[in-house]
Amino acid sequence: MSTVSDKTDSAPLEFWFEFASTYSYLAAMRIGELAARAGVALAWKPFLLGPIFQAQGWNDSPFNLYPVKGRYMWRDMERLCERQGIPFAKPALFPQRSILAARVALALEHEPQQGPDFIRAVYRANFAEGRNIGEQATVERALREAALDPAHWIARADTMKDALRAQNERAVQIGLFGAPSFVSNGEIFWGNDRLEDAIAWHAQGRRESR
Amino acid sequence: MSTVSDKTDSAPLEFWFEFASTYSYLAAMRIGELAARAGVALAWKPFLLGPIFQAQGWNDSPFNLYPVKGRYMWRDMERLCERQGIPFAKPALFPQRSILAARVALALEHEPQQGPDFIRAVYRANFAEGRNIGEQATVERALREAALDPAHWIARADTMKDALRAQNERAVQIGLFGAPSFVSNGEIFWGNDRLEDAIAWHAQGRRESR
Repeated sequence: MSTVSDKTDSAPLEFWFEFASTYSYLAAMRIGELAARAGVALAWKPFLLGPIFQAQGWNDSPFNLYPVKGRYMWRDMERLCERQGIPFAKPALFPQRSILAARVALALEHEPQQGPDFIRAVYRANFAEGRNIGEQATVERALREAALDPAHWIARADTMKDALRAQNERAVQIGLFGAPSFVSNGEIFWGNDRLEDAIAWHAQGRRESR
Repeated sequence: MSTVSDKTDSAPLEFWFEFASTYSYLAAMRIGELAARAGVALAWKPFLLGPIFQAQGWNDSPFNLYPVKGRYMWRDMERLCERQGIPFAKPALFPQRSILAARVALALEHEPQQGPDFIRAVYRANFAEGRNIGEQATVERALREAALDPAHWIARADTMKDALRAQNERAVQIGLFGAPSFVSNGEIFWGNDRLEDAIAWHAQGRRESR
């Protein structure tokens, strides 16, 4: 049916990310180029893991709650970033408060170029430049790096409180429990390790629906 | 120094697995061929996640404790097994009691062909054939599939209680927190998704030490 085909054709691959998440950083730095190469359209979906972890009984990152796992994660990040040529410096503070950056990213969802530029700038600040993205000055700096007006977008962010809450509720409804996650027509892929699979799956689904 | 080189040359890649672990199944079915192709020697290391999870405050698999994550994991297993041509049927009981199978596998550690044959047979029983590996009859069946004498090896397993406990203590000392894990001269790789990386790392380290 053409309606189904149209719907599937136009549905982008959803990239759900949390600015405080290490593996989301890896995915955020890679997904733009990989998706473009596969001809896959993206929807960048900022959300917050805090409320989702709290619902599981965690009041901190599992990488802090389980230090042995945390130690492994930092070493794994080092290895992966080195191999993929992605800059990395372990932040002094982890996880960082990401709510302002998430609201700005949500406000930017219809800016297909500068939105992702801002997102990557925030991630670099957190995981390569030793900045604290919980500080407004860092978010403003990232906006300037994306050639965006800080005053305008910080003000817009202030209007996105309900929208970000709704975005998080949708994440829970879909069945997301961690970040990064990729969603292709209801099919969930979790983790930077599934990025290539998610893109291939989405491209395949689009072809089959034609 | 030749002593260091000799030591590194002869050290195998350690494959730490838990018979109740879904992603260990995927790794167990793939590692033999991948390691052989890379010329990497393997040490198959059975251990138990139960005591390790208990130390983290979990009295069950995290996939049962966090049902949303569990749902995702089963779907992920389906997709991965289908793509890699590995048979899969979600077991009615999860996780299954793996202590007897682990003791037998430990007793078989110097059987480079039949040990892995037994291990793969146990995994197939758990994740493809709908059997319960907690039952001695299933373990005996896996021994027969590997052309091993069930009575002999079940009796040997009975003498491995302390050795398996020591194996688990070593896992904790190394810093393992999940399965499968791969250890190459102190470098840890966690998860079936890191199998190829671990083999490449081990092969590289061996070359550099020559």
